[in-house]
Amino acid sequence: MSDHRDPNTEPAPPADQARPTSLSRRGLLGLALGGGAAGLAVGVGAGLAGGIAIGRERERSATDAPFAFFGAHQAGITTPVQDHLHFASFDMMPRSDRDDLVTLLQDWSYAASRMTQGLEVSATGAVGGDAQTPPDDTGEAQGLSASGLTITIGFGPTLFENADGDRFGIADRRPAGLERLPAFLGDDLNPETSDGDLCIQACADDPQVAVHAIRNLSRIAFGRARLRWSQLGFGRTSRTTTDQATPRNLFGFKDGTANILSDDAAALDEHVWVAASDEPQWLRGGSYLVARRIAMIVETWDRVRLAEQDRIIGRDKGEGAPLSGGHEFTDLDFTKAAIDENSHVRLAHPSQNAGVRILRRGYNFVDGNSSLGRLDAGLFFLSYQRDPQQFIALQRSLSTDLMNEYIRHVGSGVWAVPSGARDGSYVGAELFD
Amino acid sequence: MSDHRDPNTEPAPPADQARPTSLSRRGLLGLALGGGAAGLAVGVGAGLAGGIAIGRERERSATDAPFAFFGAHQAGITTPVQDHLHFASFDMMPRSDRDDLVTLLQDWSYAASRMTQGLEVSATGAVGGDAQTPPDDTGEAQGLSASGLTITIGFGPTLFENADGDRFGIADRRPAGLERLPAFLGDDLNPETSDGDLCIQACADDPQVAVHAIRNLSRIAFGRARLRWSQLGFGRTSRTTTDQATPRNLFGFKDGTANILSDDAAALDEHVWVAASDEPQWLRGGSYLVARRIAMIVETWDRVRLAEQDRIIGRDKGEGAPLSGGHEFTDLDFTKAAIDENSHVRLAHPSQNAGVRILRRGYNFVDGNSSLGRLDAGLFFLSYQRDPQQFIALQRSLSTDLMNEYIRHVGSGVWAVPSGARDGSYVGAELFD
Repeated sequence: MSDHRDPNTEPAPPADQARPTSLSRRGLLGLALGGGAAGLAVGVGAGLAGGIAIGRERERSATDAPFAFFGAHQAGITTPVQDHLHFASFDMMPRSDRDDLVTLLQDWSYAASRMTQGLEVSATGAVGGDAQTPPDDTGEAQGLSASGLTITIGFGPTLFENADGDRFGIADRRPAGLERLPAFLGDDLNPETSDGDLCIQACADDPQVAVHAIRNLSRIAFGRARLRWSQLGFGRTSRTTTDQATPRNLFGFKDGTANILSDDAAALDEHVWVAASDEPQWLRGGSYLVARRIAMIVETWDRVRLAEQDRIIGRDKGEGAPLSGGHEFTDLDFTKAAIDENSHVRLAHPSQNAGVRILRRGYNFVDGNSSLGRLDAGLFFLSYQRDPQQFIALQRSLSTDLMNEYIRHVGSGVWAVPSGARDGSYVGAELFD
Repeated sequence: MSDHRDPNTEPAPPADQARPTSLSRRGLLGLALGGGAAGLAVGVGAGLAGGIAIGRERERSATDAPFAFFGAHQAGITTPVQDHLHFASFDMMPRSDRDDLVTLLQDWSYAASRMTQGLEVSATGAVGGDAQTPPDDTGEAQGLSASGLTITIGFGPTLFENADGDRFGIADRRPAGLERLPAFLGDDLNPETSDGDLCIQACADDPQVAVHAIRNLSRIAFGRARLRWSQLGFGRTSRTTTDQATPRNLFGFKDGTANILSDDAAALDEHVWVAASDEPQWLRGGSYLVARRIAMIVETWDRVRLAEQDRIIGRDKGEGAPLSGGHEFTDLDFTKAAIDENSHVRLAHPSQNAGVRILRRGYNFVDGNSSLGRLDAGLFFLSYQRDPQQFIALQRSLSTDLMNEYIRHVGSGVWAVPSGARDGSYVGAELFD
């Protein structure tokens, strides 16, 4: 299974090194008190005293080795794209302070470091604690393996400063590039499914494992942060390793053929990771995440002639080969008239955008249907880049995309994604140094 | 793989027997004309002339043998429960007539008989037709296997008669038991996610395959029926074979331990299948499907003491063992005080309900969250029974269920599910004889 591991995250530390001594216990204790049962403090304390015995305390039947949580980069970026997504955006509670934010990130990191290894959120978990207290873990993932779970945490522009000001004393540490995305032609954004102080991307090969992660992290946030919006996704629309087949989006086309691959270290350094020479220093080794909820008008698309669908995309629907000829992975030849100058592949191509590339990691979604019987379906676009300007440049380039007639951007957000946590530390620790 | 086949559906017929000579071609032609491209008639005609070569025309890489579509019973009832659900309710269009209904069922059966075998909706599919016409198939399942897809079709009470009267000349054939479910204590039903003239349950081990099926069947219905509401689900909450582990619902408990198993022919005959001695005759070999969208107030549940959670359910959260002792599959002993008289397992148990049993086939769902940050999560309950009165009796028995404080029934529907289609025929043909 070693070829399925993320080369950018380090192997799980041995149990005796894995105890996150700087992690707060307040969150889980807070949970217990929130349940009104003071007695839990004993049970949880006893559990924490045992530390995080990653790789030893395996309570679930693992089918694959889990992805390490600690490492140089957060997992979930170059990790081979899993089948399912639960994405969540959070806002800090109105009266929360810097200590709330730091302990939340510590508690999230503690729980994430366990859940990604197939463990429950605490040592006592769903059923191992005092029966007279609410369980630490909600329990629906009991018996399931880690299922490739990755948990990736990001910081939105409003975390640094919002209408209430500099709530957490970090306004002067906001990355200059971390701003609400500008308006794009055709945007039809719903504020209720946009933005957020914090985000968590949970990806797994079992949707119940991804849902369990977001639910428990939301619960741990109780009193400090609140779920703002969330999105489930399936059928990844990108590939990050050469052994992943290119999946299809809901227009029926292969999507992500030209994505940056996780073993292309030079491209990752150039286009994805914030470098040591970039500002701010606390974000080096991190990245920026852009999310766009893109509704697809599938009923209209489905009535478009096949030749026209191909022209709009610039590739053929069957193989995904460029209309200029060849097979899926043949380079596009824009000197040939077969590729329309406003086709999606041309407008998005690095050669038409001064070499700009992004790492895509999106998912398809279907969220029921409208009262007119149209599916509420589309692409939950996720991309990682070294600077949000990369996404902005590409999105502006797509302003004349022939595809725009069939899509609407209805949700949007951008977050700074810190580097991976060092063993025993937490995601974002460098921000508070 | 033979032990994974549904013992109640027959093996796929050889290709030369599979051509559904009585199936209409109108639907697919209608699609083409709907797209404004008269030329498609040629392409589709050519495709249909080849018939349905099930098991030979395999265009996708199958990982498992598909489930037969034709057979004594519809697949998707006793079939081993797949991992994902896309459920859809449809209303016939206002001016549709009996011919529209019959051809719709023929076209749905034709497409379903193909998709369940891992084929596209027609022989020309997504890319094999005339490029100057819209493709027959939307294409997002290209390259995916059948993934255990089953498609199960049901008829709601309003199909037989509604406020507009007897639209299809079948009012006198309505099963006496097929009526809108009565109001139950605590119901908080949303009419927009309840009822419907027709329903389709699509289950598969890949959500993209289930979504592809509903999307294409909706498209085929164009002009005749319209999607009323739909629901995605994951993490099946029941088991129908002894080799399936009992899954967990979003309260973290094992769910479906005592379900009717697909190899228990006597129980199926007694509780699930409409018998030859039952009325109406056209429904024999069929069943009745009840759907209930049950919202779970998970945030409140998660603050309940473990001992109280166990008491509410009547089993322990870890193993699923009855509180009266033993292991998961030990019989419940209601003479012991450990099982509360208003616990869920007791109130739902056959011994407390004059022997009534149902076949459960539900799924968990998470559909984002409310503006208060609560997950819109719960159980999409599906059950099959020989008579809707079985569900009604059980649901009334549950009126004092301790669990009711933590759930709300927000959607509801009941449908008569005809027997399986005979080779070359269509689901529901007996209704129109």
